[in-house]
Amino acid sequence: MLKVHGMSVSGNCHKVRMVLEALKLPYAWNEVDTVHGTTRTPEFLAMNPNGKAPVLEIEPGAFLPESNAILFYLADETPLLPSDRLKRARVLQWMFFEQYSHEPYIAVARFLRRFHPDPASQRALADSRMDGGYRALEVMEKQLAQDPFFVGGRYTIADIALYAYTHVAGEGGFDLARFPAVRAWLARVEAQPGYVRMRED
Amino acid sequence: MLKVHGMSVSGNCHKVRMVLEALKLPYAWNEVDTVHGTTRTPEFLAMNPNGKAPVLEIEPGAFLPESNAILFYLADETPLLPSDRLKRARVLQWMFFEQYSHEPYIAVARFLRRFHPDPASQRALADSRMDGGYRALEVMEKQLAQDPFFVGGRYTIADIALYAYTHVAGEGGFDLARFPAVRAWLARVEAQPGYVRMRED
Repeated sequence: MLKVHGMSVSGNCHKVRMVLEALKLPYAWNEVDTVHGTTRTPEFLAMNPNGKAPVLEIEPGAFLPESNAILFYLADETPLLPSDRLKRARVLQWMFFEQYSHEPYIAVARFLRRFHPDPASQRALADSRMDGGYRALEVMEKQLAQDPFFVGGRYTIADIALYAYTHVAGEGGFDLARFPAVRAWLARVEAQPGYVRMRED
Repeated sequence: MLKVHGMSVSGNCHKVRMVLEALKLPYAWNEVDTVHGTTRTPEFLAMNPNGKAPVLEIEPGAFLPESNAILFYLADETPLLPSDRLKRARVLQWMFFEQYSHEPYIAVARFLRRFHPDPASQRALADSRMDGGYRALEVMEKQLAQDPFFVGGRYTIADIALYAYTHVAGEGGFDLARFPAVRAWLARVEAQPGYVRMRED
C-alpha cells in the first residue's frame, strides 16, 4: 500500500492527501514533524537526502520526494492529469510556478507567522515575503478571471498544487479580498468530489 | 518554427537551448534582457504574466513559460525523457529539486555577484545564499557518487536542468573542489552529442 511520510498542516504534504483522496487510492500516513527536526534524522535522510517532506513510499524501500513530482506520479493516466502533450506541459508550468513564485512567499510567510517557535523574532522576514506572495496571487487572479481552472477548463493537479497554500494564505497575513477570481476558484476546488480539508491535528 | 524568448547567459534559458540542440530541433532565439526590465514590458507580460524568461513560443501566439515545463514539453517521447511512469516522476523530482533547492541559492548568488549592476551592494545577500547552495551540491554529490546521471543511468532533462547553473556555480562563489562526482558528471554532460556551451554574447 502507498505510504505518505508527511506533516498534515504542511500544504506540500496536504497536496498529496488531496490527490490520494480524489483518486480514492488506499494509503497509510506516517505523521512527521518537519518543524522539530524529524526530516533531518538519518532515517528520514535515507528516504530523501534533501531532508524535506512529503515523501511517497511507493513500495517498501522505494521513495519518491518532491510534492509536485508525487502528484504527477499519482495522477498519471487519471482525469487529474491531461494526456495531451501541451496540456501536460501547462500543468507542469503552473506547478513550477507554484514552487518557485508562490510557495517561497506564501508558504514561508505562513510558516514564520504560525508555526515558527518564536514568530515575533521572524516578523521582518515574514513581512519581506508579502510582495512576492501578492505578485503570485495577481498572476493567479489574471488566469482565473478567464478560466475556471488553471489548465484546459477542468480540475487537475495544477489546481491542487496551487490550492494547498492559497487556501491558508490568510495565516501568512495575506488578504484575498481583492482576488475575487481566486476566491471563487477556492470554492470550486472545495466542491470537487473527494475534496478533503487540511487536518489540524 | 519554435522560438525562444530568452537571455543566453541565464541558466534557465540555456537549458532550453541545450535541449533544442541535443534534439536537433530548428528554432529561432529572441534575445531578451531580463536584468534591465525587458521581461516587465506589456509585450513580454502578454507572453508570460509572471514576467520571467524563458518563454517558448510553440507557434505564433502560443506561449509556454517555466524552463522545466518547456524541457518536459520538448523532450516528451524522446530519449531525453524516459517513458516509464516512475522514471518520469524521478526526472520531475530532480527538476523540482533544481527549482526549489538549487536555483534560488546557486543561480541567485551568481546573478548578484556577476550580473547585478552594483555587486558590492549585494554581497551580504549573495553570501546568505551560500549555505543553501552547498546543501544542494551535497545532495547532488550523494546521488552522482552512485549513478552516472540523475535518473535511470542515462542522460535526461534532469541532468540538463541541473547542469545549467551548476557548471557556472563558480561565478556565484561556489568551490566545486570537494564535489568530485559532480565534477565528473559535468564532464559527462559536456561529452553528450549536441552539447552546446553557454553563450556569453
